[in-house]
Amino acid sequence: MGVTLSELAVRFGCELVGNPDQLVSSLGTLEKAGPGSVSFLANPAYRKFLPGTRAGVVILSKKDLDSCPVSALVCNNPYTVYARVAQLLHPAETAVPGIHPSAVIESTARVSKSAQISALAYVGEGAEIGDRVVVGAGCIVEAGANVGADTHLVGRVYLGKRVSVGQRCILHPGAVIGGDGFGLAPDPDGWVKVPQLGSVRLGNDVEIGSNTTVDRGALEDTVLEDDVRLDNQIQIGHNAYIGAHTAMAGGCLVAGSSLIGKNCLIAGDVGIAGHLVIADGVTITARTLVNHSITQEGGVYSGALPMDEARNWRRNSARFRDLNQLARTVNKLAKESAEPEQES
Amino acid sequence: MGVTLSELAVRFGCELVGNPDQLVSSLGTLEKAGPGSVSFLANPAYRKFLPGTRAGVVILSKKDLDSCPVSALVCNNPYTVYARVAQLLHPAETAVPGIHPSAVIESTARVSKSAQISALAYVGEGAEIGDRVVVGAGCIVEAGANVGADTHLVGRVYLGKRVSVGQRCILHPGAVIGGDGFGLAPDPDGWVKVPQLGSVRLGNDVEIGSNTTVDRGALEDTVLEDDVRLDNQIQIGHNAYIGAHTAMAGGCLVAGSSLIGKNCLIAGDVGIAGHLVIADGVTITARTLVNHSITQEGGVYSGALPMDEARNWRRNSARFRDLNQLARTVNKLAKESAEPEQES
Amino acid sequence: MGVTLSELAVRFGCELVGNPDQLVSSLGTLEKAGPGSVSFLANPAYRKFLPGTRAGVVILSKKDLDSCPVSALVCNNPYTVYARVAQLLHPAETAVPGIHPSAVIESTARVSKSAQISALAYVGEGAEIGDRVVVGAGCIVEAGANVGADTHLVGRVYLGKRVSVGQRCILHPGAVIGGDGFGLAPDPDGWVKVPQLGSVRLGNDVEIGSNTTVDRGALEDTVLEDDVRLDNQIQIGHNAYIGAHTAMAGGCLVAGSSLIGKNCLIAGDVGIAGHLVIADGVTITARTLVNHSITQEGGVYSGALPMDEARNWRRNSARFRDLNQLARTVNKLAKESAEPEQES
Repeated sequence: MGVTLSELAVRFGCELVGNPDQLVSSLGTLEKAGPGSVSFLANPAYRKFLPGTRAGVVILSKKDLDSCPVSALVCNNPYTVYARVAQLLHPAETAVPGIHPSAVIESTARVSKSAQISALAYVGEGAEIGDRVVVGAGCIVEAGANVGADTHLVGRVYLGKRVSVGQRCILHPGAVIGGDGFGLAPDPDGWVKVPQLGSVRLGNDVEIGSNTTVDRGALEDTVLEDDVRLDNQIQIGHNAYIGAHTAMAGGCLVAGSSLIGKNCLIAGDVGIAGHLVIADGVTITARTLVNHSITQEGGVYSGALPMDEARNWRRNSARFRDLNQLARTVNKLAKESAEPEQES
Repeated sequence: MGVTLSELAVRFGCELVGNPDQLVSSLGTLEKAGPGSVSFLANPAYRKFLPGTRAGVVILSKKDLDSCPVSALVCNNPYTVYARVAQLLHPAETAVPGIHPSAVIESTARVSKSAQISALAYVGEGAEIGDRVVVGAGCIVEAGANVGADTHLVGRVYLGKRVSVGQRCILHPGAVIGGDGFGLAPDPDGWVKVPQLGSVRLGNDVEIGSNTTVDRGALEDTVLEDDVRLDNQIQIGHNAYIGAHTAMAGGCLVAGSSLIGKNCLIAGDVGIAGHLVIADGVTITARTLVNHSITQEGGVYSGALPMDEARNWRRNSARFRDLNQLARTVNKLAKESAEPEQES
Repeated sequence: MGVTLSELAVRFGCELVGNPDQLVSSLGTLEKAGPGSVSFLANPAYRKFLPGTRAGVVILSKKDLDSCPVSALVCNNPYTVYARVAQLLHPAETAVPGIHPSAVIESTARVSKSAQISALAYVGEGAEIGDRVVVGAGCIVEAGANVGADTHLVGRVYLGKRVSVGQRCILHPGAVIGGDGFGLAPDPDGWVKVPQLGSVRLGNDVEIGSNTTVDRGALEDTVLEDDVRLDNQIQIGHNAYIGAHTAMAGGCLVAGSSLIGKNCLIAGDVGIAGHLVIADGVTITARTLVNHSITQEGGVYSGALPMDEARNWRRNSARFRDLNQLARTVNKLAKESAEPEQES
C-alpha cells in the first residue's frame, strides 16, 4: 500500500527530486521518520535534523534542498503541503450511520439517516442533526440547536438551546457553546440577572478547542464566521463577533460585544476587553491585553514583558513603581542641561 | 399580547414620556429594535444610536431624554430596569417536574417531586434535590451533595461529593464544584497528596459560569456567599472564601485560602495569590496580579500594562530589563545636579 | 477508634512530646481542631494560632515546639508528615468492583474484574481498564485508550482514542486528555487542518486537575512523566514533554513542542511559549511568560509586575510607553555629565 512520490508531486504541485515510483505510506518527524515515511521541514528550528534524516521523502522549500539527503518534494509552503499529504494518508474518520442504543433522541428531533449518534449522547426536542454529522459520546445537543452537515462533535460537547453550528466544523471535548453570557445589573439588594436571549452562530469550517466556551448573546447572537479556529481553554463573551479565518491560540479571553476582524492571528493568552473593534489582518502577540480598539489593518501589537532571572526582575519591577517620578526627574535634568546659560 | 408602557412605568418606578397604552412585547438593541420592542441606553458608547432608534420605547436616564425620538421610560438606573423588564417579558424557564427515563437516581437519593431531572443526569446516594430544582441533561450530582430549591444546574454540571448549593443558584455547563484542591507535600520520593477533606458551600443566588471550577477545601470548606457571581473559565482554589455580592469576570484565578470581601468587582483574568485578604468593596481592573493583601475598603487596584504597536513595545520592554540601572544613573545625575558647587 | 501518638511517631519518624497512648482520630486546623484531632504548622502565616490551639497534637518543626501548648510530633517536614497522617486517617476510596447498569462497555473493551465502572460511564472498543481502577460517573474512555491499575478517573473525565494513563493516577472532573492539538497550515482559501496523529502518554502517579486539557501530539505523543502534577484549568499543547515530579499550578498554558525538565515548580498562570527547553529544577513565579529557553538548572524566573493603587499604576504605565526615549535621554545626560571638560 501507499502512494507514489509522483502522485504526491502532481496532486500538491511540488517539484519532485527523487524516484517518482517510490512508495510512502506514513508520516514522521525528520528525526524519527523511516524510509516509508513522509517528513517535512517548515520550522527553521528543526533544520538541524535534515542532513541526518532517514525519511523516505521530505517536503521542503527550495532553499533547504541542498541539505536533504533523501528524496524531496519542493514547494513554497511545506507545512501546508504536509498538512494535505497527512490528510491524504490519514483521512478524518467519517460518520458510521446510526444511533447508539444508549443515546437519547427526543421525539421531535430530526436526525439525518447518515448521521452517527454515539453512546450516551443526547439530542433535544426540535434539534436538527445534518447529514454525516458525528455526535460523539456524551455530547448534549439541547432543544432547537442545529448542526450542519459533516460536522464532528468529537465527544462531550455541549450545545445550548437554539445554537447553530455550520458545516464541516470540529468541536472538541468539553467545549460549551451557548452558555449564558455574564450579564448583571446592580441593585441595592444585589445583582439582577440580565436574561441572555440571543444565541450563538458558528459558520462553516469552524474549529473549537477542548473546554473552550462561547457564550450566547444578550439580545442578538454571538457570531463566529467561517473558518474561525479557536484553540483550547478560550472564553468568548456574549455578542462578540469574530471574522472569517481568524485563529486564536489557547487561553484567550474575549469580553462581550467586541468585534474582531477577519484573518487575524491572536496568540495565546491574549485578553480583549469589551466593546472594542479590531481591524482585519491584525496580529497580536502572546499575553497582550487589548484595551482599546485597533484600527490599523494588518498591524502587530504586543503587551507582555519578557521574563528575567528573579533577582533582576525584582529590582526592575520595584523601580517600575516609581517610574513616573523617575521620568519627572529626568525631564527636569534634561531641561536644566539644555539651558545652562540661563541658570548662570 | 404584551405589556403597556404604563404598567412598566408603575412596576419599575420610571417616569413615562409617551403613550401609556402603547404595547410592547419584546426586546431589542437601539440599532435593531422595532416598534413593538423595548430598548435601553446605559453604555455611553451606544448613545449614537439613540436619535435613529425605531424602538417602541427606550429605558434611559433623564440626561438622554432630549435625544430620544420615541417613547421613553426615564429612571436613574436604565440597565437594572432593563434587566427587570427583560425578566418580565422572558421569564426564566421553570422545572418540568419529573425524572427522565434515561436519568439515574440512586436509591437513597431524595429528589423533590417538583424537581426536574433531565436526560442522562445522575444523582448519587444520599444526595438531595430540592423543590423546583432543574438538574439539566448530563449533570452529575455525587453522593451526599445537596441542591437548594429553585436552583438550575443548566446541563453537564458536576457537583462533587457532599457539595452544598443554595437556593436560586444557576450553574452553567461544564462547571465543576468540588474537585480536589491542589495539595501536595514534597518528599524525596516524589509528591505526597494531601487529602482534600473539606467540601464546597455555595450560598443562595450564586451564579457559576461555564467550565468554571471551585475546589473543595483541604480541611474546612471553600465558601462562596450569597449572590456571588462568577463568569466562565474561573478557578477558585481550596479554602478560598468569597464574600456576598462579589462578581468576578472570565478567566480569574484565585489561589488557595484567600479571603475576598463582599461587594468586590474583579475584572477578567485577575490572579489572586494564596493566603491573602481583600477588603470589602475593592475593585480590581483586568489582568492584575494581586500579590499582597488589600486592606483599603473600596480601593481600586491595577497591574496590567497597556498594549502598544509591537515595534514600540519591543524597544520599551528591552529597556525594562535595565530599569534598575537606569534609575541608579538618574539618581546619581540628580544628586550631581543638586550639588554643583561641591564638585567644583 | 483512632491511632495513638506513639504509633504516629514511629510510623512517620517523628519525635513525640506528649503522652504516647493519647488517641487521635481526625484532622483540623490549628484554629479549629479539638482534642481528638491532629493539626500541623507548616506555613509561618499560621504560627499565630499555635499558642491558642486546642488540637490533640500538632505536627511541627523543632523551632516551633516551645510555643506549642499541647502534644507535639516534631519533625523536619511537618507538611509532608501531616499529608501522610491524613492519608492514614482518611484513606482514599477504593474501587467497588462492578459495572453500573447504566454504564456502556463496548464489546471489545477489556475491563478488569476488580475495576469499578460507575453510572453513565462509557468504555469504547478495545479500551483497557486495569485492576482496581475507578471510572467515575459520566467518564468517557474512547476506543483503544488504556488506564493503568489503581488509577481514579474521578468523574466526567474524557480520555481520547488510544490515550495511555499509568498507574495510581488521579484525573479530576472535566479533564480532557487527548483532544486534537491546534495544528493549522495557512492556505489562500483558509486554514488546512494538520491531522493530529499522535496520542498522550501519562506516566504513573500523575494528577490532572479539573477542566485541565492535554492535547494529543501531531506525529509523536504528548508525554507527562511519572508524578507530574497539574492543577485545574491548565492547557498542555501537542507534543509537549513534562519531566517527572514537575508541578504546575492553576491556569498555566504550555504551547506545543516545549520540553519542561523534571522537578520544576511552575506557579499559577505561567505561559510557556512553543518549542522551548526548560532545564530541570527550574522555578517560575506566578504569571510569568516564558518566551525563551531556560538552560540554568535550578534557576528562578519571574515576569509579572506587582499591582499598585490604580492611580499610581496609570501614571507609571503611561510612562512605560516612553521608556525607550527616557533611557536615551538619561544616557545622553550621563554622557554629558561624564565629559564636562570636553564640551567647554
